[in-house]
Amino acid sequence: MKKLYYSYENFKKDTHLLLKNLQHFDTIVGISRGGLTLSQAIAESLEIRDVQTIQTRLYDCDKKRECITIIDNTSLKEDSTVLIVDDIADSGETLKEVVEYFTCKYPTIKFKTATLFYKKTSVYKPTYWINEATCWIEFFWEVDFKLQKHTQ
Amino acid sequence: MKKLYYSYENFKKDTHLLLKNLQHFDTIVGISRGGLTLSQAIAESLEIRDVQTIQTRLYDCDKKRECITIIDNTSLKEDSTVLIVDDIADSGETLKEVVEYFTCKYPTIKFKTATLFYKKTSVYKPTYWINEATCWIEFFWEVDFKLQKHTQ
Repeated sequence: MKKLYYSYENFKKDTHLLLKNLQHFDTIVGISRGGLTLSQAIAESLEIRDVQTIQTRLYDCDKKRECITIIDNTSLKEDSTVLIVDDIADSGETLKEVVEYFTCKYPTIKFKTATLFYKKTSVYKPTYWINEATCWIEFFWEVDFKLQKHTQ
Repeated sequence: MKKLYYSYENFKKDTHLLLKNLQHFDTIVGISRGGLTLSQAIAESLEIRDVQTIQTRLYDCDKKRECITIIDNTSLKEDSTVLIVDDIADSGETLKEVVEYFTCKYPTIKFKTATLFYKKTSVYKPTYWINEATCWIEFFWEVDFKLQKHTQ
């Protein structure tokens, strides 16, 4: 599959576009690891101090679908506004499951979601997204910090 | 106070230097918000999937010292190796308190700490650090995502 290297400069430009559409939120929940850098960028810009994270594990249940385990240690306030942040809605399974899980756990909270990329075949469409993904995205945080022994 | 803009390119270079000294850890605990981007970079490079975060609130108790509240929802495994990550050991109060707190909460875990900057006057010296801070550091994540209405 064709790969696209997504640089820090692209990230900076796109995050600015994303931020133009975002209001203030009480809390950011970043999906680890993919959403961590974007979570910090959004939080710094919008001066959101409450940044929490969750982890997800995606694995093949069978040939037709993926299953997700959500490791959640968040503590969210009733009636607050929460932005869930990830890098990409690819299959969309992660975001779909996370939003369903949180909506069930915190019924009084309004959840919105933000990603940098969205694939048209995703089963979940984020509230905010910037680019349509048409190939494999190699994010700078996946590439730029590989030690030489890994890349040679 | 003199300010130093710390760019993504500097971060990339320094994170590589930091990574050369790091072995694998079972878990990364990033201090939010300052340590989030560095946590993701280290975790991606060392292929550490378990990335958790804590929040700290620093405030003046009185004129002589700062007090810290730690908001901790981590769940760490006994006998594991954990790297606590932040951007800077400035006064050092945050890291000192966090390490003391975690060592008390998880007595069987070996904690190490990593930052990009360390100030000689800090009350805590990280296990791993790259630069000595001699002025005010403006990290790229604090500067690059400010919307124009904030910076004009």
